[in-house]
Amino acid sequence: MLSTLPVHATADSPKKPRAPDLHGRLLSSRQLSLALAAPLSDEDQTVQPMDDASPTKWHLAHTTWFYESFILKPNLPDYREFAADFEYCFNSYYESKGARQPRGRRGLLTRPSAQQVRDYRAHVDRELGRLFTEGFVDDGPDPLVAMLELGINHEQQHQELLLTDILSLFAYQPLRPAYREPQPKPEPQVAAEPMQFIAFDGGIRGIGYDGSRFSYDNEGPRHDVLLYPYRLADRCVTNGEWLAFMEAGGYGEPLLWLADGWTTVKSQAWDAPGYWEERDGVWHQMTLEGLLPVDPRAPVTHISYYEANAFANWAGKRLPTEFEWEAASAGYEVAGNDLGTGALRPRPAGPGNGRLTQMFGDVWEWTSSAYLPYPGYRPAPGAVGEYNGKFMVSQNVLRGGSCATPTGHVRASYRNFFYPQQRWQFTGLRLAEDAA
Amino acid sequence: MLSTLPVHATADSPKKPRAPDLHGRLLSSRQLSLALAAPLSDEDQTVQPMDDASPTKWHLAHTTWFYESFILKPNLPDYREFAADFEYCFNSYYESKGARQPRGRRGLLTRPSAQQVRDYRAHVDRELGRLFTEGFVDDGPDPLVAMLELGINHEQQHQELLLTDILSLFAYQPLRPAYREPQPKPEPQVAAEPMQFIAFDGGIRGIGYDGSRFSYDNEGPRHDVLLYPYRLADRCVTNGEWLAFMEAGGYGEPLLWLADGWTTVKSQAWDAPGYWEERDGVWHQMTLEGLLPVDPRAPVTHISYYEANAFANWAGKRLPTEFEWEAASAGYEVAGNDLGTGALRPRPAGPGNGRLTQMFGDVWEWTSSAYLPYPGYRPAPGAVGEYNGKFMVSQNVLRGGSCATPTGHVRASYRNFFYPQQRWQFTGLRLAEDAA
Amino acid sequence: MLSTLPVHATADSPKKPRAPDLHGRLLSSRQLSLALAAPLSDEDQTVQPMDDASPTKWHLAHTTWFYESFILKPNLPDYREFAADFEYCFNSYYESKGARQPRGRRGLLTRPSAQQVRDYRAHVDRELGRLFTEGFVDDGPDPLVAMLELGINHEQQHQELLLTDILSLFAYQPLRPAYREPQPKPEPQVAAEPMQFIAFDGGIRGIGYDGSRFSYDNEGPRHDVLLYPYRLADRCVTNGEWLAFMEAGGYGEPLLWLADGWTTVKSQAWDAPGYWEERDGVWHQMTLEGLLPVDPRAPVTHISYYEANAFANWAGKRLPTEFEWEAASAGYEVAGNDLGTGALRPRPAGPGNGRLTQMFGDVWEWTSSAYLPYPGYRPAPGAVGEYNGKFMVSQNVLRGGSCATPTGHVRASYRNFFYPQQRWQFTGLRLAEDAA
Amino acid sequence: MLSTLPVHATADSPKKPRAPDLHGRLLSSRQLSLALAAPLSDEDQTVQPMDDASPTKWHLAHTTWFYESFILKPNLPDYREFAADFEYCFNSYYESKGARQPRGRRGLLTRPSAQQVRDYRAHVDRELGRLFTEGFVDDGPDPLVAMLELGINHEQQHQELLLTDILSLFAYQPLRPAYREPQPKPEPQVAAEPMQFIAFDGGIRGIGYDGSRFSYDNEGPRHDVLLYPYRLADRCVTNGEWLAFMEAGGYGEPLLWLADGWTTVKSQAWDAPGYWEERDGVWHQMTLEGLLPVDPRAPVTHISYYEANAFANWAGKRLPTEFEWEAASAGYEVAGNDLGTGALRPRPAGPGNGRLTQMFGDVWEWTSSAYLPYPGYRPAPGAVGEYNGKFMVSQNVLRGGSCATPTGHVRASYRNFFYPQQRWQFTGLRLAEDAA
Repeated sequence: MLSTLPVHATADSPKKPRAPDLHGRLLSSRQLSLALAAPLSDEDQTVQPMDDASPTKWHLAHTTWFYESFILKPNLPDYREFAADFEYCFNSYYESKGARQPRGRRGLLTRPSAQQVRDYRAHVDRELGRLFTEGFVDDGPDPLVAMLELGINHEQQHQELLLTDILSLFAYQPLRPAYREPQPKPEPQVAAEPMQFIAFDGGIRGIGYDGSRFSYDNEGPRHDVLLYPYRLADRCVTNGEWLAFMEAGGYGEPLLWLADGWTTVKSQAWDAPGYWEERDGVWHQMTLEGLLPVDPRAPVTHISYYEANAFANWAGKRLPTEFEWEAASAGYEVAGNDLGTGALRPRPAGPGNGRLTQMFGDVWEWTSSAYLPYPGYRPAPGAVGEYNGKFMVSQNVLRGGSCATPTGHVRASYRNFFYPQQRWQFTGLRLAEDAA
Repeated sequence: MLSTLPVHATADSPKKPRAPDLHGRLLSSRQLSLALAAPLSDEDQTVQPMDDASPTKWHLAHTTWFYESFILKPNLPDYREFAADFEYCFNSYYESKGARQPRGRRGLLTRPSAQQVRDYRAHVDRELGRLFTEGFVDDGPDPLVAMLELGINHEQQHQELLLTDILSLFAYQPLRPAYREPQPKPEPQVAAEPMQFIAFDGGIRGIGYDGSRFSYDNEGPRHDVLLYPYRLADRCVTNGEWLAFMEAGGYGEPLLWLADGWTTVKSQAWDAPGYWEERDGVWHQMTLEGLLPVDPRAPVTHISYYEANAFANWAGKRLPTEFEWEAASAGYEVAGNDLGTGALRPRPAGPGNGRLTQMFGDVWEWTSSAYLPYPGYRPAPGAVGEYNGKFMVSQNVLRGGSCATPTGHVRASYRNFFYPQQRWQFTGLRLAEDAA
Repeated sequence: MLSTLPVHATADSPKKPRAPDLHGRLLSSRQLSLALAAPLSDEDQTVQPMDDASPTKWHLAHTTWFYESFILKPNLPDYREFAADFEYCFNSYYESKGARQPRGRRGLLTRPSAQQVRDYRAHVDRELGRLFTEGFVDDGPDPLVAMLELGINHEQQHQELLLTDILSLFAYQPLRPAYREPQPKPEPQVAAEPMQFIAFDGGIRGIGYDGSRFSYDNEGPRHDVLLYPYRLADRCVTNGEWLAFMEAGGYGEPLLWLADGWTTVKSQAWDAPGYWEERDGVWHQMTLEGLLPVDPRAPVTHISYYEANAFANWAGKRLPTEFEWEAASAGYEVAGNDLGTGALRPRPAGPGNGRLTQMFGDVWEWTSSAYLPYPGYRPAPGAVGEYNGKFMVSQNVLRGGSCATPTGHVRASYRNFFYPQQRWQFTGLRLAEDAA
Repeated sequence: MLSTLPVHATADSPKKPRAPDLHGRLLSSRQLSLALAAPLSDEDQTVQPMDDASPTKWHLAHTTWFYESFILKPNLPDYREFAADFEYCFNSYYESKGARQPRGRRGLLTRPSAQQVRDYRAHVDRELGRLFTEGFVDDGPDPLVAMLELGINHEQQHQELLLTDILSLFAYQPLRPAYREPQPKPEPQVAAEPMQFIAFDGGIRGIGYDGSRFSYDNEGPRHDVLLYPYRLADRCVTNGEWLAFMEAGGYGEPLLWLADGWTTVKSQAWDAPGYWEERDGVWHQMTLEGLLPVDPRAPVTHISYYEANAFANWAGKRLPTEFEWEAASAGYEVAGNDLGTGALRPRPAGPGNGRLTQMFGDVWEWTSSAYLPYPGYRPAPGAVGEYNGKFMVSQNVLRGGSCATPTGHVRASYRNFFYPQQRWQFTGLRLAEDAA
């Protein structure tokens, strides 16, 4: 993802981000990654369970390489590279940066060791500090500030992935280890509030980021879209509602499914969301706190787009477009059950009282919108131009962040994207319908 | 695809399609399929070269089964099924019609024989005639007329596939057989006219079918979209322009490609459009007239969405959206180099003189739009509801028809769709750019 | 397979094969192939159901190419090649003859047509006739006679394959067509005679071909092996006995199986021999006469080596070695239920009365011997040296011929070989045990 | 592999193995495994590079589980299982012991941790000690002694695998780490001694183990075979000779190869032995001491059976049978460059002076013999019966041990076996020829 700061944020920014504040945010972001890795052994941090999920160690190193490659080398004149081989090891997908360890083999890298990666982080953090103390940022050009903002946001994305990827690893293990000990959950096991639909007018709406802070290039350019009147559910679909879908034979009825979805259901033998397993007649789900009984009031999660779409068909509803979602979010505070709450799992919604709940945090909400460029979108030149644009095919947009998203990372205009069959993220759904 | 006739065509139709005319069109559609198969031996008609491409014999039988299953059985009281096993053999993908021969194994069906399939066609054609002569259509309900229109349009789609699929089969064969002998091509081998861009205003535009004749359900509901000003090339990209892209290293430069596209280029070792092969230093392309030298002035064809997108990036342009394409087509006659010209290949464009050329016929034009439902779209209940809606994920829309599309089949609102890696159809591209 | 005639047959041959007799045998062998193909439509003859099984048309052409390439071109001075492309199309695996149609794509060749292949055969047959009438054989060198013998034997092998491959194709088809109409089977449905074991002494035995007629190179050199005393069952294992194995849970008990076999059973979901399917509670098997109820008294067939080995373990017995089998066959006439009987299926054994039955014909009998060269074996130089030797790894030897083997093709020393998972041939088993 | 001690060792053993000696050997075997793992980080010990190669940690745990499951649980009345889940995690392939972690997913087990595995080892070692100190072995039945011998030998096999598997892992890593620092190699870089062939008589030879110590069940029963006169090379084929094969185009000449071998060469793009890579025009090979230049005098290693066979064809020789190898080894001391020398790599042969060299140690020598049961072989009942017999198909026998084989593990009668395409072991070849 390319920071759009050079293009539209700093241009009209009322107040330039000040270096000390930026340095502080940078440092705390760097520390958060280490804190998230802390409960894990070096062994846990090394293994890759599947192509989509990278090792913790790789996340820790890749985010560091990003600073080294895109910030320190071009901007700190006497910067000394930590180790020549690390670019090969920890480049993710930047073709312009040359050959790299194949994605599916990131888990073979027992060397460099986790300790070397921590040393790498310390080295790069020190050198990033020099950028500030030696005046490069204060006096520096705006593009450097923009790149540092991008570095922070990039690392935040990997913090979420670190958690979802370690969950994937632990879910594959016979011992079903917990990332942390289960926390008490005082909520009574009563049913969720009935789902309510809230109406929104149609008309022309502005879509895309229009603020003065950081945003990704794929959130712009800001532009108008024409919406028809619609209604959105005031909360996400719950596990309890999903169980009703399952009991009604939802996974066995082809007419509910997209053709590709049905093929996947059959070939993968799906009969429940990801990480669900039945033990003694009770459905459990693998979580960061280990294997726990499914809470019927909490939002369903680890579902693919195919499943979200089939559920909506079964319910006689549909998924919202990303534009409907963004327009509806206007006036809502960007706050919710994100990583900052420490819950590490989606939580039941409170009463809506005529307003949307769970818009931010809990689960990424699948939209019916394909991930495509906005009118006038152009990727930036150079390596960071590979950030977002090259993925704009065959994926769907998700909105709102999840229980694993670092606080402050998402916005109303934030666009996440995954392939329709993927479900190892904290993905869920909110229903919509036409208002006409 | 579900006919939308019951819903919005017949409702406001000024004049109901009359049965005799309908019967005549039906008969000539049925005869066209046989005429297209006539140059092929029974052996040619039996083999399946890859999962995407079905045998001629299967097309002949499947379109017949469609009439038998959706029209004759429900509407002709004393209809006698031709053979009980044929539903299993020739159902394509209708889950509601039960188990069927797996798609990739359609080519194993040496029985029923091609002759039996021809007998099957004759039987069904006779019985369809009884629908008319015994008064079922004249007095019949509108849904039957709508289904007959759907049957004709369905068969037209398979007529195009019959040609592209036999081309695929012949392209795999070492003898590179010709579907028909090459026809003389009197055009001088001079360069194409320079590409011109024609400007279109932005604003709110109506999209989707709004006429009173047949259309597919995915062309509606008619609705408004908001467009920004744009320009469209007055003709399709030519083979000559594509050769320039190849010579500039287009297939070797990852930064031009979508990530999935680049993966495909490497894994498939693509270095040219489909069916191209170099012989003695000259690029040839397999065509329905056999292996022929590439004509630099004709539109490039047999390209994937990935390639179309990469070419547009290289040219500093983009692909149009399907809405831009449809809005631009307003006022143009639906006519061009389709199957009716007998050319069986895309032909060079004439001079544009400030107007768009090649909008209909020649090649299906990839758009940047994902294939998604229009606002308010609902698939019909029942088996024909499986026609279009269940494919609305991971595919892109193409517009305008090709040199293999039967005359009268497409419209300005017509939406074709394929996966981004597919290129055995007559697919090409037209460039677009922002006008701002 | 290389004829060993040049090396040891003709050297000590008491009487050289005379040309007229050879020409007669050649002609009748050529006619037999056409007769076997006669019940099949051109469509049937074109399609390939799986990599192992080639189309009928390909067999007809390949055996013809063999004569053209190895006999006519080198020996008939003014021979005119029928068509230049046919070597590419119909070479099987001779690396020394250059590139060829990939094995798994033989079924894509709708051109050349079946009629062209028949014309090709007629052309080559005429030219082979000239070899005789113009005196090349009579006066010719012994190697030419040897090559003609090899050509006949080579075609006989493909005659058997033609039948097993068309059975494979028909078994994949939903209509389960019959190669020919079922013949009446007058045998009463009574149980088979109890299996008896016949003892054979140990000691040094001569193994390999020692006659003066044609044999394959892999049957020599004749050499001594040391055997321990053993016993052989007087007949093959029957379907009834196999049903008992199935009912005892044989396909579900891993300890009975070789590790590779168990992996195959699970991955292929095998629970019965090849072509078996249960209909209304009765086991049927696809045969050249269509889908028929399993005859409990007939030899089980279409079993892999893995299955044969598991059955023997379950029965507390073992498979014989190929040396035990060959030594035991001494004194038995090479005759049985082969292609010449016209039965086209394995038949129940008659009473053994203390002698072995079913040694020749009915089913190829899996032995426990790996397919390896005999001491002193050397492949011939040149293309025919690729006949047998290059397959001597990972396969097991089978002995005795089957109901699809042309009369006169096999000998006591004849070694057939297949991979342990293959079962589309008429394969079965005979039990053995140590005599000590 | 089942110990045959109960059957033929203890029966005629002149002196029963005494418990104290056995305990001492057991302890030092247990300590050797830990010593081999000592240079590796916990991360190194966790990852699995491919299905064939297991993680170090898994080897350490599996060998421990073997003692727990087959010895402690059945023989130590109050034995307390270390952890209930470990049987699932660390059972290798014993179907009779129930479900287990799939082989290709052994590397996902970050839990239990390497430290827990070391604790597991300590626990089991203590309890094995109690077997001795509490008198179970001294007074115990012979089968327990046999099982303890089997446990030691089983662990020795895994010690060799531990080394070859970590080499495989390190070879996949971009940093090409060394298991240990390269040791000085004082040998001058001169050519190897010319290869000499030593003649052996034919006749009847006894094959299989006939001593009174431990051997595997697949080494018996002792039996006679008939050999023809033959000659064996006095040393293994060297890297220098292999380079000559490569330079002569050996990897590009299909007529030298078995058909399956040629398919593998093409699909795997093999052009050199395993772990070879060219750097700056010099061939290097990945070793336990990292990436080093190939020593032309040392035996070639990491070659498949296909390659060994092709080389022998190219050289106009053949591979020996396992019987020829074993008969030739008579009178030679079982000693050589095994794990005990500490070389960790094959070393150049010294002068033969008319005698065979390198028969034991250096490289496992591929023989032309398929891995099959000896006459009269029967696997033992119960789980240990799954040790050897179930692998007796599609593999070839190798003889003599390698530089990674623990001292004392092999014998003249020892039969190792691998699939013909495998080459991650220290595999090499010795040429043979007929003497006639």
